[in-house]
Amino acid sequence: MRELEERILRDGKVYAGDVLKVDGFLNHQLDPALFRRMGEEWRRRFADQGVNKLLTLEASGIGIAAIAGEVFGCPVLFAKKSRTRNIAGSVYTAQVESYTHGQVYTILCSKEYLLPTDRVLLLDDFLANGNAMMGLLDLCRQAGAAVVGAGVAVEKAYQPGGERLRGQGVRVESLARILAMSPEEGITLAPDPA
Amino acid sequence: MRELEERILRDGKVYAGDVLKVDGFLNHQLDPALFRRMGEEWRRRFADQGVNKLLTLEASGIGIAAIAGEVFGCPVLFAKKSRTRNIAGSVYTAQVESYTHGQVYTILCSKEYLLPTDRVLLLDDFLANGNAMMGLLDLCRQAGAAVVGAGVAVEKAYQPGGERLRGQGVRVESLARILAMSPEEGITLAPDPA
Repeated sequence: MRELEERILRDGKVYAGDVLKVDGFLNHQLDPALFRRMGEEWRRRFADQGVNKLLTLEASGIGIAAIAGEVFGCPVLFAKKSRTRNIAGSVYTAQVESYTHGQVYTILCSKEYLLPTDRVLLLDDFLANGNAMMGLLDLCRQAGAAVVGAGVAVEKAYQPGGERLRGQGVRVESLARILAMSPEEGITLAPDPA
Repeated sequence: MRELEERILRDGKVYAGDVLKVDGFLNHQLDPALFRRMGEEWRRRFADQGVNKLLTLEASGIGIAAIAGEVFGCPVLFAKKSRTRNIAGSVYTAQVESYTHGQVYTILCSKEYLLPTDRVLLLDDFLANGNAMMGLLDLCRQAGAAVVGAGVAVEKAYQPGGERLRGQGVRVESLARILAMSPEEGITLAPDPA
């Protein structure tokens, strides 16, 4: 998606440790108008798939998914990272290893809101090693929900997440794909297929 | 706001320990169409205030604020609950005591995105004791940003948060105000002024 790619090249900063800082528009300060167009692009790519629910993970996926949910005209569910007493009743849980924080945590969602009749599009801001997405996929499989695909804003295509998801039969649609990046060389994006 | 009030009365459940479960539409599963109309209501109430930034707190404020940001036509900033290595550079920090989790945590936002020229509307899903909002107010004051007010989805009006904020000179606009609730008696809402 050209607009997102241009924004990454213009505003993104690469730091040592494989960190892409895009927190001016994607995952700390948010650009809702950009998110709207990202949602429209995912809707275009997943048209006629019968998507009736979006599933993401707190925290940085929520803004993207909320606006995409309005575009798709369906509810949005975000998996939580720890049990709070505001979630009553039964939950599905999965384990996720966090690259950013270097720890394993539990994600969960209420059984009440993820159903065998659901056709779910997974959404997240980043896809790198794929652990978060694999956790969301795990929740859907426990629920017996169909996973239509995974919509990603920024895929680090040199990391294994994309292949891991595709190896599980999940269609992955990333709006920007990074082939390589470094503080010295900057960011190399895959050509936009559109 | 009548639609939100009716939704709370229809779908909300009250549990012991002063817990209002509205996770079917507000803070776990999200209803983006409702969020749009909430954003429009806050825009109506804060019209002509020159709001140029929305500030909320992860996680459950983000969906509401993202869609409201599109309505207001301005960026959304969410304060994070712990330092991650994706935030580089200097940050403002504040301490918040969590009622839900029973612990004190640090919230932070990048100095880069909260500016002395900003006219900020604070947003959150719940206002109870007001600790989260007071933390957001603290961040704004450190930045020298003007706080235009606080938009709240559900205020527990029998708790001190609303008065604490108003005592700090903050205009609070809650879309639903709960006067009392209990598992036995259900939910009593304040009359809708609109």
